[in-house]
Amino acid sequence: MDGVTPLFTGELIVSSSRVAALGEHVAFSGPFDREIDCRGNLLMPGFKNAHTHSGMTFLRSLADDLPLQRWLTEQVFPKEAQLTPDDVYTLSKLAIMEYLTSGITMMFDMYFSRESIASAAIDTGFRTALVGCANDYGGSAKETEQEYARFSKMNPLISYQLGFHAEYTTSEPLLKDLAEMVHSLKQPFYTHLSETAAEVESCVAHSGMRTIEYLDSLGFFNYGGGGYHCVHVSELEMEIMKARGMTAVTCPGSNTKLASGVAPVYEYLERGIPVAIGTDGPASNNCLDFFREMFLVTGLQKLRHGAEAVDAMDVLTMACRNGAYACGFPDCDSLAVGKQADLIMIDLHQPNMQPLNNIEKNVVYSGSKQNVILTMIAGRILYERGEFAIGVDPEQIYAEATRIIRRMK
Amino acid sequence: MDGVTPLFTGELIVSSSRVAALGEHVAFSGPFDREIDCRGNLLMPGFKNAHTHSGMTFLRSLADDLPLQRWLTEQVFPKEAQLTPDDVYTLSKLAIMEYLTSGITMMFDMYFSRESIASAAIDTGFRTALVGCANDYGGSAKETEQEYARFSKMNPLISYQLGFHAEYTTSEPLLKDLAEMVHSLKQPFYTHLSETAAEVESCVAHSGMRTIEYLDSLGFFNYGGGGYHCVHVSELEMEIMKARGMTAVTCPGSNTKLASGVAPVYEYLERGIPVAIGTDGPASNNCLDFFREMFLVTGLQKLRHGAEAVDAMDVLTMACRNGAYACGFPDCDSLAVGKQADLIMIDLHQPNMQPLNNIEKNVVYSGSKQNVILTMIAGRILYERGEFAIGVDPEQIYAEATRIIRRMK
Repeated sequence: MDGVTPLFTGELIVSSSRVAALGEHVAFSGPFDREIDCRGNLLMPGFKNAHTHSGMTFLRSLADDLPLQRWLTEQVFPKEAQLTPDDVYTLSKLAIMEYLTSGITMMFDMYFSRESIASAAIDTGFRTALVGCANDYGGSAKETEQEYARFSKMNPLISYQLGFHAEYTTSEPLLKDLAEMVHSLKQPFYTHLSETAAEVESCVAHSGMRTIEYLDSLGFFNYGGGGYHCVHVSELEMEIMKARGMTAVTCPGSNTKLASGVAPVYEYLERGIPVAIGTDGPASNNCLDFFREMFLVTGLQKLRHGAEAVDAMDVLTMACRNGAYACGFPDCDSLAVGKQADLIMIDLHQPNMQPLNNIEKNVVYSGSKQNVILTMIAGRILYERGEFAIGVDPEQIYAEATRIIRRMK
Repeated sequence: MDGVTPLFTGELIVSSSRVAALGEHVAFSGPFDREIDCRGNLLMPGFKNAHTHSGMTFLRSLADDLPLQRWLTEQVFPKEAQLTPDDVYTLSKLAIMEYLTSGITMMFDMYFSRESIASAAIDTGFRTALVGCANDYGGSAKETEQEYARFSKMNPLISYQLGFHAEYTTSEPLLKDLAEMVHSLKQPFYTHLSETAAEVESCVAHSGMRTIEYLDSLGFFNYGGGGYHCVHVSELEMEIMKARGMTAVTCPGSNTKLASGVAPVYEYLERGIPVAIGTDGPASNNCLDFFREMFLVTGLQKLRHGAEAVDAMDVLTMACRNGAYACGFPDCDSLAVGKQADLIMIDLHQPNMQPLNNIEKNVVYSGSKQNVILTMIAGRILYERGEFAIGVDPEQIYAEATRIIRRMK
């Protein structure tokens, strides 16, 4: 993915959490805990889900076919208010299971009850970047700073990125506190950014500036970071993104289903602005399927800019590499000696992968969750041929998720 | 799907090729050849792929990221010219395998070597509508009429629909011959229709009419039928489609990837014009995955018309019912007593289907090929939990498809 390790036929050795060796012929001769004959299937870095709200699995298919503002205020907020930390623990595990079936090895998760999310991630073995989501309804700069200190050192599987929910849910005094925190910690900063046209218009109305301009005027992106969605962005704002080293996390499934618009991914790539990919939460998308997202990333740009726009390798770079950097796990960007063994096996012995004219294009243009036969994180196999190894019976999670939504008013 | 059989919990009995009984409690008590405990999973009618070119599997991922005209003339036509009937037999089987993994139980296949396609369909047990594709490079009205007589009576799994390749590949003398054939046989007629803006412009340039107007002026749709793609269509042309009872077969994956445009599906539904869904061929799309198509059908309309546009039940009606009518298999539209047992089992015991807030929405918005655990056509199980029962070893098909493309110059 980084140009260091092109496609080859050979072996890959994992020792503890890392790639110990890989190549056509490797020096390691064992003994091994386990040897897997990959039968000529594809090993590749896992997909990184650079924006999600995992705990929202309970809302799947409950409130579709509504525009974003009505969906949020009529359906999402009233039900979320009834969630307990234990609920978030269970619902995050349900999302993690879905990620594993889709070859996703990392999530950048913005949701409340972050202690519960971290527990779900650690208990299942799933690599997770948490991000603060302070806004007028909860959270503060002080709490965000405390979380940063606590979660950054919690576990090798966990990172913590500074952030808040969104400009449109956060009034100026809190924004200024948060900006001060950024200046003191000098860390990258992430938030929902320019998802809908209405949100940008409202920012212009009260501040005289578009959202990215306004937040940048407070210094939020002085140390990099990025935005989730980044759909409605001006030329000036793209210049800011480029200058600050921001990543645009595109969520095409959610933006499509909620009719929010199409992010200018083609323009980001032209300007050298890194793009990562997120599923957004399962209440809006509704699924957590990176194959859907990857096809939409390229397809929607082709519809706008022609069939040559955004090719398969561009998409794989976003999916596997850029997401790792945004999440604060640079060691998970590619398969090379010393890198984290966050990898997936893609079944090429399936009709949608045949013939093998071009494997990268097959993955992006033809791939499906059906092709994911193994998902490994930090050297541990968490999913293999339909079976989960995450320390809990899937049926128990399904039953608990059902109880949570049935309990709600 | 037709409003006759809403979702219920119960049993379904298949006898020979048909549904013998279904309901909460059925009178049949056996003995049965086989009883399957569906574990609360979903049985539903199979998806009908209402436009494809199955034999093009050999071109998958070979010529992506090109606009339609260059893709056709530089890549597709020169390689297709080297295909033998045996090649088409093998390559059609490869596509059929992919359909089965995606819950597709019927194809409307436009390709040459139709004898080979019919053999592949019959030998695997796959329900297939063939369609004529005469154009200036091959085929005639006479040949089409002979094929109609032969294939219509060949096998219960095979139907034959009148058609030709496209207005832009067929000059006026041949068009007039074909129109005369339609008037004599009084049958529905299908063709590629208004896929790209360039094709419509060229029709206007030589005939003074847009494509649907022009073909209608020759009487092609006097007995119904429809068009594949129908992306660039005027208000007047929609009136023609409505008046003639035409079906618009939308192929959003292919139209997206080739940058051809977005079909006015929302407008078709508003006017009561039936819409069916096709994958188009695996050289353009590149995969034959109905879950991708179903999400795109609704998603692309939501982007244009708002989040309320084209809901999950609209999409399922297109996918399961309207495609059956277009293919000439009205008995395959739904699961009811006496209907053909063309059905699939969707695994609800997967994280992307949980919780079961709304099963129909789960299928359309969250479903994936991973959820297809059984595909039955005419009462025969052809695919079950990853295994094919189509009379041939999948690895043999993969090897033959590879040999075909490697042989080509």
